[in-house]
Amino acid sequence: MTTTALTLTPTDGGAGCCGPAVTQAVDPEVARELARTFKALADPARVQLLAIVAAQDGSEACVCDLTEPVGLSQPTVSHHLKILVDAGLLTREQRGRWAYYSLVPGALARLAGALTDATSD
Amino acid sequence: MTTTALTLTPTDGGAGCCGPAVTQAVDPEVARELARTFKALADPARVQLLAIVAAQDGSEACVCDLTEPVGLSQPTVSHHLKILVDAGLLTREQRGRWAYYSLVPGALARLAGALTDATSD
Repeated sequence: MTTTALTLTPTDGGAGCCGPAVTQAVDPEVARELARTFKALADPARVQLLAIVAAQDGSEACVCDLTEPVGLSQPTVSHHLKILVDAGLLTREQRGRWAYYSLVPGALARLAGALTDATSD
Repeated sequence: MTTTALTLTPTDGGAGCCGPAVTQAVDPEVARELARTFKALADPARVQLLAIVAAQDGSEACVCDLTEPVGLSQPTVSHHLKILVDAGLLTREQRGRWAYYSLVPGALARLAGALTDATSD
């Protein structure tokens, strides 16, 4: 996730039919980036996995400890974790037999900030 | 969106193979609710529409003013707006010919809070 804030930029305004013209829109590139991140969170198992990792000491967890809490097989859990890594929310580190997943510092806070920025203008 | 915070509840812990046992997980019902809301935001057009509505005076916009900024037909825009309404992020009010959409007060802030709660434990 390289861009993390809803950057509001002026549009042409348009010919409003029934009120003040719409004068602001989100940059399309930012909208795509945010939608991609939200898509990674659009699954209950991934919400759970992210919250579990975030709740651990050092915001890090072994994949071997993540299967039981979500009640899914390790291949399925690894698939969900890969989506969270690809979205820039987690990082993955292989240590011997097991993969460890860590929360990307600030990633959730930046996403939260993008949501609240949308309501502050 | 009736439940808006990531409520962390104890799990059985499990037999961790290689570190401290995982002791926290998100309530499955909360995870489903959050995932449903994130899914509503998992589309660039819906991110744009939500931000445009949020940026208007009174956080309200006529559907007639929303088609041009996103470059989509009115039926397509209405479809996207319905998904945002169903997710509890917008409300819809018909006034004569046009439908007006308003941001649900606090909805985005609560969603943002759920994200940051996940990292505060």
